[in-house]
Amino acid sequence: MTATAAATSRPRKRIVIVGGVAGGMSAAARARRLDEHAKIVVLEQGEYVSFANCGLPYSLSGEISSREDLLLHTPSSLSRTLNLDVRTGHRVTSIDRERCEVTANRAGGTERFSYDALILAPGAVAVRPPIDGLDHPAVHTLRTIPDLDAVQEAVAAALRDREPGAGAPQAVVIGAGFIGLEAVEALVGRGLHVHLVELADHVLPPLDAELAALLAQELTAHGVTLHLGVSAQAVTDAADGTTTVALSDGTDLPADLVVVNVGVRPASTLAEEAGLELSARGAIRVDGDQRTSDPHIWAVGDAVEVRHAVTGALGSVPLAGPANRQGRRAADSLSGHRTTPQQRVLGTAIVRVFGMTAAVTGANQSTLRSAGIEYEVVRVHAGHHAGYFPGAEQLHLVASFAPDGRLLGAQGVGRDGVDKRIDVLATALRAEMTADDLAELELAYAPPYGSAKDAVNMLGFVAQNALDGTMPQWHPEELEQVRAHSLVLDVRSAEEYAAGHLDGALHLPHTELRDRLDEVRAAARGRSVAVLCASGVRSYLAVRILRGAGIDARSLSGGWNTLRSLQT
Amino acid sequence: MTATAAATSRPRKRIVIVGGVAGGMSAAARARRLDEHAKIVVLEQGEYVSFANCGLPYSLSGEISSREDLLLHTPSSLSRTLNLDVRTGHRVTSIDRERCEVTANRAGGTERFSYDALILAPGAVAVRPPIDGLDHPAVHTLRTIPDLDAVQEAVAAALRDREPGAGAPQAVVIGAGFIGLEAVEALVGRGLHVHLVELADHVLPPLDAELAALLAQELTAHGVTLHLGVSAQAVTDAADGTTTVALSDGTDLPADLVVVNVGVRPASTLAEEAGLELSARGAIRVDGDQRTSDPHIWAVGDAVEVRHAVTGALGSVPLAGPANRQGRRAADSLSGHRTTPQQRVLGTAIVRVFGMTAAVTGANQSTLRSAGIEYEVVRVHAGHHAGYFPGAEQLHLVASFAPDGRLLGAQGVGRDGVDKRIDVLATALRAEMTADDLAELELAYAPPYGSAKDAVNMLGFVAQNALDGTMPQWHPEELEQVRAHSLVLDVRSAEEYAAGHLDGALHLPHTELRDRLDEVRAAARGRSVAVLCASGVRSYLAVRILRGAGIDARSLSGGWNTLRSLQT
Ligand SMILES: Cc1cc2nc3c(=O)[nH]c(=O)nc-3n(C[C@H](O)[C@H](O)[C@H](O)COP(=O)(O)OP(=O)(O)OC[C@H]3O[C@@H](n4cnc5c(N)ncnc54)[C@H](O)[C@@H]3O)c2cc1C
Ligand SMILES: Cc1cc2nc3c(=O)[nH]c(=O)nc-3n(C[C@H](O)[C@H](O)[C@H](O)COP(=O)(O)OP(=O)(O)OC[C@H]3O[C@@H](n4cnc5c(N)ncnc54)[C@H](O)[C@@H]3O)c2cc1C
Ligand SMILES: CC(C)(COP(=O)(O)OP(=O)(O)OC[C@H]1O[C@@H](n2cnc3c(N)ncnc32)[C@H](O)[C@@H]1OP(=O)(O)O)[C@@H](O)C(=O)NCCC(=O)NCCS
Ligand SMILES: CC(C)(COP(=O)(O)OP(=O)(O)OC[C@H]1O[C@@H](n2cnc3c(N)ncnc32)[C@H](O)[C@@H]1OP(=O)(O)O)[C@@H](O)C(=O)NCCC(=O)NCCS
Repeated sequence: MTATAAATSRPRKRIVIVGGVAGGMSAAARARRLDEHAKIVVLEQGEYVSFANCGLPYSLSGEISSREDLLLHTPSSLSRTLNLDVRTGHRVTSIDRERCEVTANRAGGTERFSYDALILAPGAVAVRPPIDGLDHPAVHTLRTIPDLDAVQEAVAAALRDREPGAGAPQAVVIGAGFIGLEAVEALVGRGLHVHLVELADHVLPPLDAELAALLAQELTAHGVTLHLGVSAQAVTDAADGTTTVALSDGTDLPADLVVVNVGVRPASTLAEEAGLELSARGAIRVDGDQRTSDPHIWAVGDAVEVRHAVTGALGSVPLAGPANRQGRRAADSLSGHRTTPQQRVLGTAIVRVFGMTAAVTGANQSTLRSAGIEYEVVRVHAGHHAGYFPGAEQLHLVASFAPDGRLLGAQGVGRDGVDKRIDVLATALRAEMTADDLAELELAYAPPYGSAKDAVNMLGFVAQNALDGTMPQWHPEELEQVRAHSLVLDVRSAEEYAAGHLDGALHLPHTELRDRLDEVRAAARGRSVAVLCASGVRSYLAVRILRGAGIDARSLSGGWNTLRSLQT
Repeated sequence: MTATAAATSRPRKRIVIVGGVAGGMSAAARARRLDEHAKIVVLEQGEYVSFANCGLPYSLSGEISSREDLLLHTPSSLSRTLNLDVRTGHRVTSIDRERCEVTANRAGGTERFSYDALILAPGAVAVRPPIDGLDHPAVHTLRTIPDLDAVQEAVAAALRDREPGAGAPQAVVIGAGFIGLEAVEALVGRGLHVHLVELADHVLPPLDAELAALLAQELTAHGVTLHLGVSAQAVTDAADGTTTVALSDGTDLPADLVVVNVGVRPASTLAEEAGLELSARGAIRVDGDQRTSDPHIWAVGDAVEVRHAVTGALGSVPLAGPANRQGRRAADSLSGHRTTPQQRVLGTAIVRVFGMTAAVTGANQSTLRSAGIEYEVVRVHAGHHAGYFPGAEQLHLVASFAPDGRLLGAQGVGRDGVDKRIDVLATALRAEMTADDLAELELAYAPPYGSAKDAVNMLGFVAQNALDGTMPQWHPEELEQVRAHSLVLDVRSAEEYAAGHLDGALHLPHTELRDRLDEVRAAARGRSVAVLCASGVRSYLAVRILRGAGIDARSLSGGWNTLRSLQT
């Protein structure tokens, strides 16, 4: 018997996949590569499969010039390359777990598909915020190609119908998360004036407030009007036909177009109705191999429950990377291939906001606080490459460490080099690295690319110093206590001090400190000294000098830079 | 007794540091921060301290517009900020270990400095290749600010003295290592025609040949003439006053200017004369705390011996990052501060060559081969961000893995995103990650920054497949054997095939393979099938189809892309 005969005489495994985009199609592709003989059917309710959801905002902006570029595959290309049987316009409405069969609604009727292995990759559904008039025709979301087409049409109409001499058409974007910010950028790029409405007190809620402030500046600089800490309450038509969005603070915003993106929830109705185990929040429960509570059914992507690597919290992480890799793992598992254990998620994410980049990995400060996890936060405002090489952009990094030095999370904002640092830190987090490890990372250095002591090394150095007592820190949120009980010592230059400072601070440039210790002692009157400079470097030097002289001193983490961004 | 009194009544520790640049001054700065009361003297033979050696080539090119930008500190700024006693023009000529004293030559005489702790940071000295006439005034090196000044002057003179109508002045750069390539770029930028002479058979010898070929193309495209696999033998003046560089292949190159950079060796004469333990290659031996064989003497930087993380080989790594961090560690150690164990070095390095970046970390293929370490190499030619987003540049990554999956080294060349991937891979190497770990890295993805399956994840996927037998590979160096014993199957499109292919290959686009298996079987006549495509993706799919049909098949690692670059 030849190998071929052996292979073809086995009964062909029937694999059915619900959802034909990131997680589903990755699973289908991998399943085919692992089993040339399986019968693989992909059922997708929409008109398109394998489309680049993540590219939708850039198609809206025009940066991706052709809508076709978003379609990475078609059913026919998937048939040709991977011999997949892809059915668009097929909405799976039920799973008969006993008979291992799903039923799909399609044009002209229903159809049943039997499976040996079923993969659920239905993604997420947009959360509908409690806004009156959410079904108003001016209100859009941005999750699919048809959504994109509708927004494109609305933008074109608004630009076309504008009265000569009137200002830019008005868009209201509700929700300042990743996709909301991408939508804002796209709409501004198309020439609209954008009002951005966000319930949280800062844009991009996963980002700590101090960094979000920098994004807010960038948004404002590009003409976006921010409405933070308020909710949209109603979308209504005035008598004159204009549409208005009413905010909780009483503002009425005229709107030619409204885009709502306030988050997603797992699309788990099908799984729920089939009696699969769900989390309290409605995500599909899976094991380390993506297997659900039914051994013949796997689930992946936005729809499933994952565990956070740092906090251990259960939730869902609606991101493309995890969805793709989970799809691959599910295919490995159902094919009997060796699987790698599912890693806990870090929630690494990134967004471009005009000229800025913001990125996060691991736990942010507010998550750590609410999870009751003890941490020390450090901040570095460093050049993205050697300062003596032209074009160095300031990189703002914030990282949190456990008392034993383990990295817990990091965030960055800046005009260049943010993605690199966050990827390095995401890799470090995955490896459970500590401050000591970051200090010792051997990163690639030549002047156009980094610094001999890279910003990531610096995070390690600063954390070492903060944790081992070399440089006790004080933090912006302690400002009031500090002003009440300590001497604030500002060691910046006279010019920097003149441009803005805290009332009541003693000003004394760090280079003069050694000669003027008596002045500090006199002003401190036995109180501890809270030192600050612009970024934390000079105040660190000052703290070392003061402590060397027996004076209790702490350094303001992140310096004036961080303090100021929290005060705007 | 107050803390101050306690601090000042202790005898002040006397710290003497030899060498005032990367390692030495980092040690001095850290030592001061850890001990406000120490007496810290830095002795530097040159005129400058704390200068950015790494910036010299960019000052030559004019990209760094002011030479002063290279001077990060002066003795007076170091005195003001860190209370360091910095003496330029002080060449330390001997160490009296018994008396804990060094002697320095300075203008007008010698001076002795007693120490409690001595740090040696003398750096490296340029290797002088065996070339007749190396002391010819047209011959320069590029290691210090005075070197830079001399080259600047030579370039200015060559440009000024050029006959009207004559071509560009001619420079010969000997040595195509990191600094050599930077010098080439700078000289071309200044309008010179450059001949680059390298003894190895490819530029940037630490890079594997297949990637070096891409740099060679970039150099040629910028008008550089390459002389590979040859050595310079003599620099002589012709009767007409022109200078000529004679190469081993008989070529005579006229030269207005010659820059030699063929590597460095540890500057360890002082240590040797003091009887400190050196390696066979003359590097200063240190322990994990940078301490030499004399407990009162530490050594750091280019002068010391380090152990390679992957091969375990002892050597030296003349790079700024390690020098800086070693300086910091030496200061920690001599101050009695907690030290982190010295990490083995990865040799992470990077260079810009016109529009390209090349970077390496860990062991390359030739090092692994000569160390007798078993490895599997994988190649990925992927976009540096999502392909559907405009501006994706091809990224060429090569990585080697141990049979058990552990990452051993990685290299990259491309126009964008190389530095990020190498930094991630350097972090992964430090964490001793495996192919499985790379596959699961959760890197930041949005269309402008990466891909849902980043190129680094892809390295992990491909390595998993290569190592577990899902995708057996064949490699370019096996080409002759393969052609002799296997059927070569080219699964690219008809256009790609027409543009260049291997004689005798069967051509059959991968999308047609399932229907034309009989043709493959007939052509193979029982031999195994060696599949190739452009980058390795389609040949992987084809291998899976063929193996599914019981045909022994392997995929060409890196595809035509890699094969072609090795043949140019
Ligand atoms: C505008 C936008 C921008 C984004 N940007 C980024 C980004 O920059 N980076 C990032 O990491 N992530 C981004 N994401 C998120 C990312 O696209 C998702 O996390 C990822 O696509 C999830 O994959 P999935 O397979 O779980 O779901 P999806 O890719 O959403 O696929 C699910 C599919 O299942 C279909 N389906 C659902 N139920 C049924 C049913 N009953 N029968 C048949 N078919 C069904 C749906 O129609 C859908 O096509 C973005 C998403 C959007 C919408
Ligand atoms: C042109 C150039 C470009 C470079 N580019 C890069 C790059 O892009 N990335 C990278 O990582 N590395 C780069 N390097 C290498 C990097 O600069 C070195 O690895 C680093 O400076 C080594 O630090 P060190 O303290 O050991 O020696 P150095 O920084 O060289 O300092 C040693 C000092 O000691 C002094 N000295 C020696 N002997 C005595 C004595 N007896 N008495 C008194 N003083 C003495 C010397 O004059 C010298 O100033 C580059 C080097 C050069 C020359
Ligand atoms: C496009 C889509 C079908 C991907 O399928 P895929 O074939 O698994 O993914 P890719 O095309 O990226 O190819 C990855 C495969 O090529 C292999 N590969 C990549 N480079 C290779 C190389 N140089 N040599 C050999 N193999 C290589 C990988 O190993 C992997 O195969 P494996 O999973 O069997 O190990 C699916 O991801 C999809 O529909 N995506 C669009 C939707 C989406 O992702 N949206 C969210 C982001 S916008
Ligand atoms: C410039 C030179 C004196 C560096 O001294 P340095 O003070 O150790 O280095 P930096 O200026 O980078 O500062 C690093 C210190 O600031 C601290 N720091 C950085 N950012 C901080 C922040 N935001 N908050 C608090 N502290 C911070 C770090 O923790 C570190 O201190 P530590 O070592 O005590 O932990 C020395 O490296 C030198 O001479 N370099 C030039 C030569 C050279 O490096 N050449 C090769 C490359 S071109």
